[in-house]
Amino acid sequence: VLPDIRVLELTNDRLREKQFVTDLGIETTEFVKIDSLDDLARAVDAIGTPAILKTRRFGYDGKGQTRIENAGECGRAWRAISQVPAILERFVRFDKELSVILARARTGEIKLYDVAENVHDRHILASTRVPARIETATGDKATAMACKIADAFDYVGVMAVELFLETGGGEIRLRVNEIAPRVHNSGHWTLDAAMTCQFEQHIRAVSGWPLGDPSRLANAVMTNLIGTDVDNWRHYAQDPAVKLHIYGKTKTMPGRKMGHVTRLERLQT
Amino acid sequence: VLPDIRVLELTNDRLREKQFVTDLGIETTEFVKIDSLDDLARAVDAIGTPAILKTRRFGYDGKGQTRIENAGECGRAWRAISQVPAILERFVRFDKELSVILARARTGEIKLYDVAENVHDRHILASTRVPARIETATGDKATAMACKIADAFDYVGVMAVELFLETGGGEIRLRVNEIAPRVHNSGHWTLDAAMTCQFEQHIRAVSGWPLGDPSRLANAVMTNLIGTDVDNWRHYAQDPAVKLHIYGKTKTMPGRKMGHVTRLERLQT
Repeated sequence: VLPDIRVLELTNDRLREKQFVTDLGIETTEFVKIDSLDDLARAVDAIGTPAILKTRRFGYDGKGQTRIENAGECGRAWRAISQVPAILERFVRFDKELSVILARARTGEIKLYDVAENVHDRHILASTRVPARIETATGDKATAMACKIADAFDYVGVMAVELFLETGGGEIRLRVNEIAPRVHNSGHWTLDAAMTCQFEQHIRAVSGWPLGDPSRLANAVMTNLIGTDVDNWRHYAQDPAVKLHIYGKTKTMPGRKMGHVTRLERLQT
Repeated sequence: VLPDIRVLELTNDRLREKQFVTDLGIETTEFVKIDSLDDLARAVDAIGTPAILKTRRFGYDGKGQTRIENAGECGRAWRAISQVPAILERFVRFDKELSVILARARTGEIKLYDVAENVHDRHILASTRVPARIETATGDKATAMACKIADAFDYVGVMAVELFLETGGGEIRLRVNEIAPRVHNSGHWTLDAAMTCQFEQHIRAVSGWPLGDPSRLANAVMTNLIGTDVDNWRHYAQDPAVKLHIYGKTKTMPGRKMGHVTRLERLQT
């Protein structure tokens, strides 16, 4: 099975993932292991507020997490996540959230897509813009971090690494927020704007084929169609530069990703 | 029904198609109507050899046509096309064969793809290169001819016009060879290298939606996989810049289009 089952086990558990990243010498958000309400109260005391309590497993799109604004909310928060093993994270006031999508072949060869810039809305990815509006040095640092993780995993396939960028004090500070051992929503732009899309690239990697060229052929902004957003598809279809993707899910629900649109812009030649 | 049934009737008949184009003041290959062996003998005498005898209907990929090298071959040729209504065309020694793919909306708006350059092998399209290696003025002339035809048809949908380019004597000479009232093999590159592919564009046009942006995002060479060529798919898949398309036809036959590959090259930015 590729990616290796150990990678899936590790990235399925926020605590183990963060410990792994930290052990590699890569910065992540500050975190504390939480197994009880007592742990939580002590951690909030140590880390301060605001802080985010996240279940170690089964969390995505903001599910399994709750924000703690002050120490008095510990009981409410602990119940909110059903008193399961968790971590407490210090809240990071980041300037941008970046996404590095890469593919690593069985040979160890890595191909990188251009770094993208994400906007989340209520813990759900709202949009991805590529190229990210960042300094070259920031992009290089972000991709180096992602490659180091992929190599440490001896990863095979497409992988996404989400990072927080803080630029306060003239210093570039990047922290790994999350690792997704798979094709990722923030890489959907590659369907319409890259020479090889992330889906083909993943199949190439796990099949042992040579990786495709990940070159970006256009600038792109991908916007998720969440819940009833998808009812506006006619609006998007009218834009000559928009590629419309509807997933065909039978039931529209609030917060459910029903499709996405990617707006393309020609490169300046 | 879109495109209009009259357009289909007209373009289904080589004679009527060429008469229509000629009546628009657009040059085509010289042609003579052939209904009998006597007609053919007279026409070969008038036009000279080599010449191509083509059935008026049901011809594609070289089917329903035969080349006449000298007047003594008339009987053989007339039997070869089963003595059906035909045209005789003077053989053109062209420098390049060009392809204009356009989409025309119900409103009359036309969107043009970049002009492509075709290579045929034994009457079957072998490859298409875009952009065509031609002067700007040549491209402008070719697209103007195609637009004039589309307007005259009050065409709705994607349409291809194949033209012969002769550059002898420092003069640009373009002749319409064939009109295809549909998406066309020489437009398959748009699947991987245009902002809006010809298939989406056709649906947009006939549905009355605004047309998509036909901008080209990469240079491309499309090569057909004909007959057993398709058995080499592994070879093509190894090239990082190649997009592989296999049509899933169950039976491989000589001369049958089994798939195509498009090799992409980034634009210089």
